[in-house]
Amino acid sequence: MLTLSLIGIGCGDPDQLTRAAVQAINAADLVLIPRKGTAKSDLADLRRTICAGVLTSDKTAIAEFDLPVRDAAEADYRKGVDDWHDTVAATWSQTIANHLEGEGKVALLIWGDPSLYDSSLRIARRLNPLPGIEVVPGITSIQALCAAHALPLNDIGEPFLVTTGRRLREGGWPQGVDTLVVMLDGGTAFQALDPEGLQIWWGAYLGMPDQVVMSGALAEIGPRIVAARQEARERHGWIMDSYILKRVH
Amino acid sequence: MLTLSLIGIGCGDPDQLTRAAVQAINAADLVLIPRKGTAKSDLADLRRTICAGVLTSDKTAIAEFDLPVRDAAEADYRKGVDDWHDTVAATWSQTIANHLEGEGKVALLIWGDPSLYDSSLRIARRLNPLPGIEVVPGITSIQALCAAHALPLNDIGEPFLVTTGRRLREGGWPQGVDTLVVMLDGGTAFQALDPEGLQIWWGAYLGMPDQVVMSGALAEIGPRIVAARQEARERHGWIMDSYILKRVH
Repeated sequence: MLTLSLIGIGCGDPDQLTRAAVQAINAADLVLIPRKGTAKSDLADLRRTICAGVLTSDKTAIAEFDLPVRDAAEADYRKGVDDWHDTVAATWSQTIANHLEGEGKVALLIWGDPSLYDSSLRIARRLNPLPGIEVVPGITSIQALCAAHALPLNDIGEPFLVTTGRRLREGGWPQGVDTLVVMLDGGTAFQALDPEGLQIWWGAYLGMPDQVVMSGALAEIGPRIVAARQEARERHGWIMDSYILKRVH
Repeated sequence: MLTLSLIGIGCGDPDQLTRAAVQAINAADLVLIPRKGTAKSDLADLRRTICAGVLTSDKTAIAEFDLPVRDAAEADYRKGVDDWHDTVAATWSQTIANHLEGEGKVALLIWGDPSLYDSSLRIARRLNPLPGIEVVPGITSIQALCAAHALPLNDIGEPFLVTTGRRLREGGWPQGVDTLVVMLDGGTAFQALDPEGLQIWWGAYLGMPDQVVMSGALAEIGPRIVAARQEARERHGWIMDSYILKRVH
């Protein structure tokens, strides 16, 4: 029997690891570490650092593999993602087959939480042979963002919407909510909004040594975030950021 | 200088504790443990169990206090909550003053994550004197629910809404989303929906030894959840549950 543990490791700070995550990493026969190219090598480094810091025996093998790149030229976004999931699943299956003979415990360390804007659960269901799947939750960038700002995410008894930069840019402020969490924003989609009456809580490299957070009235702070984001992105070669917007009545 | 750490402890399983949470508990001079009456004594017990399990020195004092009860008879819900926050803040301030002389580190162990449907951040800002406030994120019941079902919360690139049972009962299915997370549902608000085309992933006592999860087509599984919830609630004397609904096209 083959089992696959998708282990949320938090979003940068190794102290965000839960005790369950530490146990699951140590229970693994094989840890898969994807390499995503040089720009995001900090992320593979973090996974190596976590393994080095928590593994207490040498029975666990570590296998690095090059993560296939999604075909951004595919006009149909969903088909592009679908094809990419197939390709990644084949790479996982091959890497597992290279190290285990059809049985054992495989672990993948997932940035944030495996349930939140992450492909691993969908890819895992395409593995051949299909393993048993276990999920260990991890701290998300939403939680790290709220913690850094000491911000209650929801207003009392009120809903909030978690959405993407693309949705915000294309659809504007959604109906029926006064709190938005914006994820996967490759740019600064908040610039598409009328900033009147909006507050923003922004953060990048959350939980990491280079964490930067800014907050305030969007009209005032928005342009400063755009500049800070640009500068940080150039310096690091990559950026991961997210933000919360609230409409004040 | 007085500091207050609001420490997310996850939703029942002590192994959901992060390493940062363990460190913050051990850094405290005083841990406040609220007693919420006998019905929810399991929750105070969990906090005591966690303290007993993670504290590595005897320099940390533990102070239990009776949590004031919110006046449910107050017709204005927001005013009722507001008054209750004032009363709880006064109780915290008094308990802190009984143990510390104006300085030191105080810790509160928060079910789930301090940013999500929790009053502690709002109460902390009413303390007198006002402490420095630190937030340590913790695994939420949403994450434990997704993990238990090995469920990706969002569809690819799609938003999701986190809302309350009351909102769902009063407003029906909200505009613009196909995934809902329903929290704080004192009953089974999903019964107010037309179940056609809806799937549900439900869980109670998530992360605890008595965890129970059910999933499937709402039309078929909904009535079984209602019965299982009723039975579990009578047996335990209390229930904490949450669920995810998805509309399938």
